[in-house]
Amino acid sequence: MVILQTTYLGRSSERLDATFAALADPTRRAILARLAKGEATVNDLVRPFNISQPAISKHLKVLERAGLITKDIDKQRRPRRIEAAPMAEATEWLEKYREFWEVNYKRLDDLLSIMKIEDKTKRRKENGKQRSKS
Amino acid sequence: MVILQTTYLGRSSERLDATFAALADPTRRAILARLAKGEATVNDLVRPFNISQPAISKHLKVLERAGLITKDIDKQRRPRRIEAAPMAEATEWLEKYREFWEVNYKRLDDLLSIMKIEDKTKRRKENGKQRSKS
Repeated sequence: MVILQTTYLGRSSERLDATFAALADPTRRAILARLAKGEATVNDLVRPFNISQPAISKHLKVLERAGLITKDIDKQRRPRRIEAAPMAEATEWLEKYREFWEVNYKRLDDLLSIMKIEDKTKRRKENGKQRSKS
Repeated sequence: MVILQTTYLGRSSERLDATFAALADPTRRAILARLAKGEATVNDLVRPFNISQPAISKHLKVLERAGLITKDIDKQRRPRRIEAAPMAEATEWLEKYREFWEVNYKRLDDLLSIMKIEDKTKRRKENGKQRSKS
């Protein structure tokens, strides 16, 4: 059983574990969004995020281990670069379900606009509650 | 600063955190793959996975909290159903990077076949090592 399961999970599954876990954090997603615009050093990243350097370094390590970023060790201050391959693989996994959600919702856009309206309604209600409390 | 960051992260960001965290586990991904074929009770899921019922229930709770599955409380044995909305949202986030990886690799298919060849080569090398040890 163990052997079968290992074969079933394979390397690709371990990579997906690491990719999805790395993406499950807003700061790490924001770092990737920044690196998509071009490479950046740790210091470049510390400034806009208003987070301590050790905290940024920790996030970078998680992203590196997942293969989502690499550092250029030949250059001074080791700039980080985004690596899109793991994201491509994660997208491929999710794409299998595209057909499924497209049956329920005519188009992804429709679904996403519904979710955004719900967000706004919730936020308005909560703001209303806060105002009536104060 | 805090207010700005909260506005920036929004609800959608919290949902993405939960979705990606829930997807970062091979058993949970396999449960979703099973539920994509049709609803299933906890017992239906225990059998093929060869995992204890409490372990399956724990995974189901994580998936439920992320909104990836729902349970039908009107039916006996509470069958679970897949909900594609969070996956659609996660895909939308990843899609922003599609353009980026398509610059590096002509097509996603090329990239994925390269990754699969690397997997096979690694596995072959490791099998070779194990054989030479024994």
